[in-house]
Amino acid sequence: MTPQAPTPAYRRLSVEERRGQLLDAALTLFAHRPPEEVSLDDVAEQAGVSRPLVYRYFPGGKQQLYEAALRSAADELRLCFDEAHHGPLTARLSRALDRYLAFVDQHDTGFSALLRGGSVAATSRTTSIVDGVRRAAAEHIMSHLDVDEPGPRLRMTVRMWITAVEAASLIWLDEDKQPPAEELRDWLVEQFVAVLSVTAKRDPQTEALVEALAADV
Amino acid sequence: MTPQAPTPAYRRLSVEERRGQLLDAALTLFAHRPPEEVSLDDVAEQAGVSRPLVYRYFPGGKQQLYEAALRSAADELRLCFDEAHHGPLTARLSRALDRYLAFVDQHDTGFSALLRGGSVAATSRTTSIVDGVRRAAAEHIMSHLDVDEPGPRLRMTVRMWITAVEAASLIWLDEDKQPPAEELRDWLVEQFVAVLSVTAKRDPQTEALVEALAADV
Repeated sequence: MTPQAPTPAYRRLSVEERRGQLLDAALTLFAHRPPEEVSLDDVAEQAGVSRPLVYRYFPGGKQQLYEAALRSAADELRLCFDEAHHGPLTARLSRALDRYLAFVDQHDTGFSALLRGGSVAATSRTTSIVDGVRRAAAEHIMSHLDVDEPGPRLRMTVRMWITAVEAASLIWLDEDKQPPAEELRDWLVEQFVAVLSVTAKRDPQTEALVEALAADV
Repeated sequence: MTPQAPTPAYRRLSVEERRGQLLDAALTLFAHRPPEEVSLDDVAEQAGVSRPLVYRYFPGGKQQLYEAALRSAADELRLCFDEAHHGPLTARLSRALDRYLAFVDQHDTGFSALLRGGSVAATSRTTSIVDGVRRAAAEHIMSHLDVDEPGPRLRMTVRMWITAVEAASLIWLDEDKQPPAEELRDWLVEQFVAVLSVTAKRDPQTEALVEALAADV
């Protein structure tokens, strides 16, 4: 056997690494418990560090840590919407929904606590983080629909569908994740096409999109 | 001229009347300003009473008054859903939506502050008052559809549509109440029929309803 350099028992993490480690620990806890039931002690224990260290990184305490964790979850959620701009549109939407539903599945309790509102940790800042994700979802959809300047009817239709998807996710969590994710995904895509078709009768811009969607199988 | 009894300059209100007067004053203020911008002084001034009197009725201060006003608005909103059980279903839904949109129109700022969440006045109690209204809306719809035991797919569809209507109301307020209420109402009814029709392909209970809806013009 050749001699090996001893593995260091302890490696000093960079500030960014440490911050990331604490956020990961917080996200894991917030994913499955409402914010009011997670203490900084829990976060320190989960990360295997001392409580003062958590405070050094998040001097604002739990609220600051919660908001940072939420921002990090929001970034992760935005990544779900990333989808190449080729292939049939409904297939692209299906793939994005698959990733979104996997996220909901992984973060179940935290996801509901956040969206149900009325949490002790809900503030205008958390609301604006969540609104940012909604806006990002709408922008992704518009870019896949190849629409630069959506008119008010198209915009309203897309935003209503996004809200309906959120509601479906919460109900899905309440109903023990039934129907299975694949069925829910197909159903949501069908609803998207259906509500666009309704709007198409009132709005030429949406009408052109629905024709393109129908041709693009 | 015959002599008349002098009109009393001051009539003592009963406890319930006084409470109602204060709630009306609060609702008027909360309707057009976010809760954080309404003080108890404003409520006293609006009702033409002293600040201590407001405190006597609402010792919990603004939060208690806000929740009581919200409960009273929620009761008013529930009344919008009251609709006789005869005539074509889409016409019944249209009439209920007319009353709902008139309520949204009248309470614009308060309505958005409440539903946008993240308000300083949002608590799990305010959330549960709002959820109660959503549940009442779903129950009304089920009773008009003559469904005693809605299956999970029908329930999810109706709840998604109710959330989409809420989103539409908020966007409508943002967009200076465009399109006109009548057009928005018709569009929402069409969306209701469209999403039920999508669910009908996956759910026999909903399929039977959609057939009944189509026959019931």
